[in-house]
Amino acid sequence: QQESIGMVPGLAVLHVGDTKLSKSYWVSCGFVGIRSFVVHLAEDTTEEKTLECVSSFNDDPCVHGILVELPLPTHMDEHKILNAVSIEKDIKGFHPLNIGLLAMRGREPFFLPQTPKACIELLHRNNIEIKGKRAVVIGRSNTFGMPAALLLQREDATVTIIHSKTKNPQDITRQADIIISAVGKPNMVRGSWIKPGAVIVDVGISYVRDRNARYGFRWVGDICYEEACEVASAIITDVGSEGLLESDMLLSNTLTSAKRIHNFL
Amino acid sequence: QQESIGMVPGLAVLHVGDTKLSKSYWVSCGFVGIRSFVVHLAEDTTEEKTLECVSSFNDDPCVHGILVELPLPTHMDEHKILNAVSIEKDIKGFHPLNIGLLAMRGREPFFLPQTPKACIELLHRNNIEIKGKRAVVIGRSNTFGMPAALLLQREDATVTIIHSKTKNPQDITRQADIIISAVGKPNMVRGSWIKPGAVIVDVGISYVRDRNARYGFRWVGDICYEEACEVASAIITDVGSEGLLESDMLLSNTLTSAKRIHNFL
Repeated sequence: QQESIGMVPGLAVLHVGDTKLSKSYWVSCGFVGIRSFVVHLAEDTTEEKTLECVSSFNDDPCVHGILVELPLPTHMDEHKILNAVSIEKDIKGFHPLNIGLLAMRGREPFFLPQTPKACIELLHRNNIEIKGKRAVVIGRSNTFGMPAALLLQREDATVTIIHSKTKNPQDITRQADIIISAVGKPNMVRGSWIKPGAVIVDVGISYVRDRNARYGFRWVGDICYEEACEVASAIITDVGSEGLLESDMLLSNTLTSAKRIHNFL
Repeated sequence: QQESIGMVPGLAVLHVGDTKLSKSYWVSCGFVGIRSFVVHLAEDTTEEKTLECVSSFNDDPCVHGILVELPLPTHMDEHKILNAVSIEKDIKGFHPLNIGLLAMRGREPFFLPQTPKACIELLHRNNIEIKGKRAVVIGRSNTFGMPAALLLQREDATVTIIHSKTKNPQDITRQADIIISAVGKPNMVRGSWIKPGAVIVDVGISYVRDRNARYGFRWVGDICYEEACEVASAIITDVGSEGLLESDMLLSNTLTSAKRIHNFL
């Protein structure tokens, strides 16, 4: 990156407490020429101290993307810490202002939330048309379903969101050209839910016990893979990928941020 | 209002230039005990001067709601002026941060945009259940369709947004328990588009020439009223109402704001 834009994009990762650090992000950084700054604070760090750390990342011109690892210790107000991240560096894209800009026509969000962005990217890379297609998103979480629906909407799909209060969801999915699911219910979407030729993106991951598997369990998606194979024209699944593409999207957001801050966009 | 919360809610209206002022808002103010402050600036006022006026409303403790009349003169940056309105007093609810909060589960917007709010209010007042129902919103404008869809979603409907790129929209509307339309295409939604017993809210308004009408034209909605009457169980239309309920919602937002600012919520 240094050659093309004259500076090194920087990703700051803030990790508080004893939970496992999702190593993949900053390990990948080195490979793509992004500098990573990892700060690890002890479990008993005060909220004030944590906010100071976020604030120093906000002010640091070498940092273009900030990632606060979740969950935070329970004595902290998660919203407060996350809202303290400067919107220009909030590469996760979950800030309400960013979500509002994503929802509005004619406005541009600072960042696209990584997992929905990865899904759309996968559809594009596989030359799957989105414009004018019926798309169904199963699940309406703030971190995936809702932003995924907004993104599909921006791509001119006709979008329906299915959720826990939806009656007869299979009647709706059966009309969809594209189904994106992220609820974490093993094998929920059966073959009979799918229109022949539809494209499925399965982001849901859960584990089920399996005595024959190496560790006594195995990962499964929301889609009943065996049945869907017979009906769908393509199935894109997160199971087994270990979130590599999402991690790429986060690094790509860091690069976008660096370019924007240094007027390369 | 003075008796119940000990102060008078204030609505400031900023009107720049020669376009017609939508009088109904501040005329209604007097009836419901809201104080109105109307500032009229000349067409050739500078952007800077206009921003100063917005800023003085932001700082004024007697003002709880701010309304910038649109359109502004063309030499001004509309986004810039609207974004200058303090989010706590932006009763129209169109600020991207407010829209983001509206889209997110577990978050609360400062204000509900008035026309979508009026629609939901009308459904509630007519005891029409929304939860678990199939709802279709026709049109995806920032000012109506998009926030209406988000509001229906918050009420646990299963929502589909139909727009100009949607193929065979009638196949989708025909499945809907609730249809809300706001596109401004006269008589677009025909009887055959409607499921028997569905509830229709028609917010679209356009005018068509009619030699027999008093002024040579008449107002019509998006719904072909004559045909819809035969199929739908209820039709709520804006035509002829002169936006009275929307105006009420704006005043209700001003009151909400005053209560919030003075800790009555």
